[in-house]
Parts: sequence; C-alpha cells; structure tokens
Amino acid sequence: MAQKPSIPKGTRDFSPTEVARRNYIIQIIKKHFEVYGFQPIETPSFENSETLLGKYGDEGDRLIFKILNSGDFISKVDDVTYSSKKSNSLLPKISEKALRYDLTVPFARYVVMHQNEIDFPFKRYQIQPVWRADRPQKGRFREFYQCDADVVGSNSLLQEVELIQLYDAVFTELKLAGSTIKLNNRKILSGIAEVIGAKHLLIDFTVALDKLDKIGEEKVKEEMLDKGISEIAIEKASPLFAMNGDAAEQLAQLKSLLADSEVGMAGISELDEIIRTVKELGLKSASLQLDVTLARGLNYYTGAIFEVSAPEGVSMGSIGGGGRYDDLTGIFGLKDVSGIGISFGLDRIYLVLEELGLFPERLDKSIDVLCINFGEKESLASLKLVGKLRENGIKAEVYPSAAKMQKQMKYANNRKVPYVVLIGERELLNQEFVVKTMATGEQETYSLKNHGNFIDTL
Amino acid sequence: MAQKPSIPKGTRDFSPTEVARRNYIIQIIKKHFEVYGFQPIETPSFENSETLLGKYGDEGDRLIFKILNSGDFISKVDDVTYSSKKSNSLLPKISEKALRYDLTVPFARYVVMHQNEIDFPFKRYQIQPVWRADRPQKGRFREFYQCDADVVGSNSLLQEVELIQLYDAVFTELKLAGSTIKLNNRKILSGIAEVIGAKHLLIDFTVALDKLDKIGEEKVKEEMLDKGISEIAIEKASPLFAMNGDAAEQLAQLKSLLADSEVGMAGISELDEIIRTVKELGLKSASLQLDVTLARGLNYYTGAIFEVSAPEGVSMGSIGGGGRYDDLTGIFGLKDVSGIGISFGLDRIYLVLEELGLFPERLDKSIDVLCINFGEKESLASLKLVGKLRENGIKAEVYPSAAKMQKQMKYANNRKVPYVVLIGERELLNQEFVVKTMATGEQETYSLKNHGNFIDTL
Repeated sequence: MAQKPSIPKGTRDFSPTEVARRNYIIQIIKKHFEVYGFQPIETPSFENSETLLGKYGDEGDRLIFKILNSGDFISKVDDVTYSSKKSNSLLPKISEKALRYDLTVPFARYVVMHQNEIDFPFKRYQIQPVWRADRPQKGRFREFYQCDADVVGSNSLLQEVELIQLYDAVFTELKLAGSTIKLNNRKILSGIAEVIGAKHLLIDFTVALDKLDKIGEEKVKEEMLDKGISEIAIEKASPLFAMNGDAAEQLAQLKSLLADSEVGMAGISELDEIIRTVKELGLKSASLQLDVTLARGLNYYTGAIFEVSAPEGVSMGSIGGGGRYDDLTGIFGLKDVSGIGISFGLDRIYLVLEELGLFPERLDKSIDVLCINFGEKESLASLKLVGKLRENGIKAEVYPSAAKMQKQMKYANNRKVPYVVLIGERELLNQEFVVKTMATGEQETYSLKNHGNFIDTL
Repeated sequence: MAQKPSIPKGTRDFSPTEVARRNYIIQIIKKHFEVYGFQPIETPSFENSETLLGKYGDEGDRLIFKILNSGDFISKVDDVTYSSKKSNSLLPKISEKALRYDLTVPFARYVVMHQNEIDFPFKRYQIQPVWRADRPQKGRFREFYQCDADVVGSNSLLQEVELIQLYDAVFTELKLAGSTIKLNNRKILSGIAEVIGAKHLLIDFTVALDKLDKIGEEKVKEEMLDKGISEIAIEKASPLFAMNGDAAEQLAQLKSLLADSEVGMAGISELDEIIRTVKELGLKSASLQLDVTLARGLNYYTGAIFEVSAPEGVSMGSIGGGGRYDDLTGIFGLKDVSGIGISFGLDRIYLVLEELGLFPERLDKSIDVLCINFGEKESLASLKLVGKLRENGIKAEVYPSAAKMQKQMKYANNRKVPYVVLIGERELLNQEFVVKTMATGEQETYSLKNHGNFIDTL
C-alpha cells in the first residue's frame, strides 16, 4: 500500500517560482560579495561532533541535529553506559557527526585547517544551508540558508566601512530603498556599563532603553529600577534618553557621557572614523543609524555591531546583522586573528520582497517559447527551430506530443509562456512559422530561414 | 586546550578556486537545463525515514545517514525494545528522519505531494547534495552533488531525443569534444533474454558481452558457458558478437536477431526513431553509439538507457547516465506516470576537466583590481575609485592597511590579481592613478576623473 508522503516539520519544498525568487536574491548578494573581493568557500554539511558541540551554549547543543553512526551502532555501547539508559551518556557513543548549526564555526575550523594555504586578510563568503532543531514558526525553519561574508586577519576599520557599503549595495539592487543599517560598538556598551557601574545589568539596561520610542522615558526608567538598576546609575546615563540628531550628532552627545571611560572613548573613536568615512563615500539608498541599544551577540562581538532593518512599514525583524569579533579561531588553536562579518537573512528578505511586490515578473515565466506539436514532420521542423533558439540562450521547447490544440495552449497558459510558435502543415510547406504573443494575442509570421528576425525581437 | 580540527571522512572543504571550478560546471549544466525548458525545484536535505527506507534495497538502506531524534531520544524507547539491545529494533524508535540518498525518490515524493499544482509534462531539474555512508575512495565521497533533469508525464520519444541533445550541448560547451553517448533500451535486453531463452542470466550475458573488445569472442563465450548460458543460446545470440557499423547499421543487424521477439522489435522501433531523429537534428561534438551491453539500473529502467563516457584517453567511468522509467511515482500512490531522466556526474566531470586542463584560467583569479594602501588620505581616494569599479561589476578592493609595499604586492601576487592600482601622495595631488599590469609589469597613468578609460580596457 502506498504511503501518503509528507516532509519533516520545519522543512520546505521549493517550487520552480520559489527557487527562481530565492536565486534572484542569492545572485544579487553573491555578485556584490564578489565585487567587494570576497571569495566563496564551501564546507561539508556535517562536521565532527566535537567541532560543533560546546560552541553555541547549552541551548545551541540541544538544537544541533546529530547523525546516528552507521551500521550496528548500538554494539559499540558498553554495558554500563547502556544500562544507564540516559540520552546524554549514550549520545557520544552512537553519534560522532552533526549537521552544521551555522557557517561561522565551520569557517573558523576551515581557517585553522587551511591556514597555510590562505593569504591573509582572507575575505570569504559562504552561502549554504544550516540546520537547527528549533520549534518551527512563521519565518523560522529547521533548514535554512545563511549568506555570510567575513574578513579574518585584518583589524582595519576599512572593513567596517566596506561592510556597511556592501549592505547598502545589496539592498539598493534589491530595490529595498529605505533600509536602515544600525551601528553600535561593543566598546560603547562596555563604557555604559562602566558609567552605570553595573556591568552585569547591561543587557537589562539596553533592552529597557530600546523601548524608549514605544513606551516613553518614565516607563523605561521604571523597568530599569525593576531590574535592579540604581537611581544613581539611571541618572548618570540620562543623556542616553535624550539622544537626538544624526549619527555624528549622537556621537558628540556620547562623548560627554563616556568621557571618563577609556574603553567607551575608544568605541567612540572607532564609530567616529567609520561614520565619517561612510559619509565621505556616500550610501546609495540605505541610511546609517547609530543605535546604542543594539547589543546582538553581546558576548561574541568585540567591536562594531551591525543590524539591518527593512524599510519602514514592513513588520519584520532584522534582515541582516553582524559585527567584529576577536579570536574566533582561538577555539581551534589559532590565536589573535581578528575577524568581522555580516550575514543576510535570506528567508526574511524573501518575505519582505514578496510583501512589497519587488520580485521581477520575469521570475514567474517558465520558458520563453513553446512550439505547438502538429505531428511528426511538423515537430521536426519545430525541433530544428528550437535548437536555433536555444543556441541563442532562449528557453524553448516543443510540446512533446501532437495533443489537441486546446490542451497544448492550456499548457502554455499555465506555464506563463510569453510566445507560442506554430508550425503546421501550411507553415511547413511555406517554410515559415507563426509567433503568437500570448499577452496580446497578436500573430506574426517569420520565414524559417530568417529565424534571426524573431530572435531579435526577444 | 584547543582541538586540532578535522572533517569527517568522505567529506570535503572546497577552496575558492575549487568552488569557482565547480560552479563553472554547474552553471553550464544549469544554463542548458533551462534553455531546454527544465525548471529548478529544491527539496529538504532530510526526509521522513519512511520516504527513503526500502526504496534502494537493503544495501541502500544501510548507506542512508539517519538523524537522531532531538531531545531525550532514549526516553521514548519502551523497555522491551531497549532490553533487546539491537540496532535494528532501536533505530525506528530513536530516528525518524534521514539525509536524502539521491534526488530521484525525493522528486517522486515532490511530484505526488504537489500533483495538483504541477502542469504535466513536468520538466524539472535539481542540483543538490546527497549523502551516502559509503566507504570513501578516489572519486567517491559521502557528500556529493547530483545534477538531475527529469520529465514526468510524457511518453513521447522526443524526450529521449532532447536528452541526448542536452548531453551534447553541455559537454560541447565544457569543451569535452569526443564524448560518447551510449544508448540502449530495456526492451532490447528483454528481447535478447527471450532469444537466448534465459531471462535470469541476462545480466551475466551482457557483462560478458561487454568484454568483447578487450578479451575477444572466444573468451567471452567461455565466460558465458561458465555462467551457465547454454551453447544453443550463445549460438542464437551470435549476431551480437559481430555487430558493426554505426547505430543505424547495428540496428539493422539487431532486427534479424530479434525478429521473433515482440518486445525486442518494440525496442528496435524506439531506438530507430530516436537515432533517426537525432541524426536529422545533428549533434555538435558528441557521438551517439548504440551499445546493447549497456544495462545500468536493469530493474529500474523500462525503456531507453543512457550512459556517457569521457573522450577517449581519459580513464574515468561514466560521466553521466539515465533512462526511462515507468511508474516512479507509484511508490507514493500516483500510478501510470512515465518518466525519463538524466544525471551529470559533477565530481567525475571535474576530474576529467582537470586532467585535460579545460578549466578557464580566469577561474583562478580572485579579484580584478587591488589598490595599494598608502595611508588614510590616499586610501580614501582609492575607496572612491574602487566604488566606481564595483558599480561596473569589476571585483576590486583596497588593501586594508598601509602595510609595507612589498607585503601588499606579495598579497596581490598570491591572490593572482591581474591589475594593481597605485594612488600615492603624488597621484593624489595630480588627481590620477597608476595601473600596473602584473603579467607584464607595464604601468599606465589615468586621471581619476576619467576612470572610465581604465574600465574600458578591462
């Protein structure tokens, strides 16, 4: 008895139109990665478990998909371990490999393994799927693509500048005008921690501050007090509640707040250089915004922190993010390699483009030309014509059988074919072909010999 | 203590040059898939176990990578099963998903699940990795890409013709002139089985016959006798030993051999139509060869069987293969859908192109232009120039720090950069830039304002 097939929850089939749309985004990202000097690498879908486990915290370890050892996997489990019947004890005995959870740890592993072949600074990009055993929900999947560009081996702030330009270039070409690139620096956050005298409360502080626009100063302060931040600390940090103006102006306000914090002032100096250079070079359609509440990956980033939000009016979380990290490769024994990277959120960008109707119409088209099949002799002439069209890069095919005209035309309609070619008995006799433009219904006759005249119209 | 990192056996990291070379092959395959009217789909990396298991025989089941259930997987195993300590009994209790083993079964599952959205005939292509827990060896990996094009819902022989043309188009563009597309038909093999009166010995028969060129008629006959094929049967099949001439001529010889076999004659009629049509349309660089010993996937294919071998002189197994199958989707409950497909062997094609030196040199180049960094003011001018170059699709970057000239030039050399741009103090003053062509050492000066003059030379 045949099964009724299904796919695992959190995974997706992609139809031709969906693949075309995803590739449209990927190709634009890829193109800009490459003109910015990044080169592609690819790493295996699964890694040795010890490469991945312990790198993402306990929650991360839990969400990593583990691969069962092949063959008689249970025979290698000793009796003591087996009798415990504990998943945690059994796991390392029956599984040695795991699906990658992100592209960053495999990249660090790659850099360390191939350090002698690599010319630093190494600018790599990687666009591959990752897997997480997360609870599936809208926009969150168990298999999804990450699109990452990273530079390792350079602590120049030009990298920060270029990555901001890169975001701008990609989102401009995707016609996502009005995207906002939010910028912060880990050192600013450290400076604030010094100022408010409570490093361990910094996350609570930034989370509360982030709500300023929505709930107002009073409620933000209440939340801070609730979280245990002292009134004195809140008072000291009060300039943060009144930040206004563009990035340069905000920076000036930060300067007085963080005047006594060495690390804070270092962060300001970095931000200042980045913001000045970006201003000098100009952005095409995105705006750069200083956001002192931006704290993604707080324990991971050591310098710049980026996050991109879609144009206003689209309710979607961040569509990209990244930052500078020191010592990424340290976990695999290669010390003192500074890195910086950004990521594009393919699935979210897809949803935004869909919502805003920004996918080009041509992506819906399956083929350019369908030749109606009128029988053996006629279809041979069609096949010859189709061969010429294909040589010119035109997507063309002959309907495979001499089915009823209506059926063939319906197929052309369903597949959104813009041009239908007819070579019937009469056309064959006259060595010509008729092209029907499906959108208008217009028909035009060309000689088979001069098929180039039709190609020129495409 | 830091681990010394490694990757699982049978898997690979791909360096930038390797990715560029693989993408070169994939892009050419993809382009021709698309001009031939095939559309891309993608399916998840893992499927529900019941979708895959039992579809590839016992050996296949063994080679499928299974994914361990997430969380406390062992708590769901009942005590009776657990106390057996048998891998086979435990497996279905602790694993419900598996990595795909090929693209064909997921495609069949896709067609059945999406049958109401699909317009038949459905021409799909799919280029994705698959995983097999096979013993790794030269050219055989545990993770590798398959590149498949299939048509389902059409039994027209035009599909066979087009797939032969498609092979020819791809291998011609890859400059693999002299590839041979071998063609057979399952019905010819059934006919031979009838003629020799021993269906169950057909595989032994074809395997022995396949050695005719190498070991000669006498030894082939000896092997056949050894395998239990009777002298009478061998005598009846003797015309197969003397087959000569081109495909059309061999077909004429087969006609007399299989005159009494209805299925055999049906196979001849199919081959005849395919071969005549291909001849009429012409191939660019491949040759079509009838090969009655070709029997790949004997139990799977029901009509045409294809296999492609690399140009003579390259010792490599087949670089592509496929055929017609009936009822692929039957396993998932959709009956009577005829299909035909071909596959390209990416890894083997890669090795052949490498051996023959057929990868274009441009694939080794990382970026087109590197700007030497002479300090803050100069590099700002470089960044502006680089911005213009990038807008024109040129891969360009500024060295990230004002390191010693020698170090920057070494970086350019190692990364095989063809053009190095110099904007030093003097050039900045004169608003110009110097381009050094690395291959010749020649230097040319352009004005920054008329940077287009440099772009035009690229």
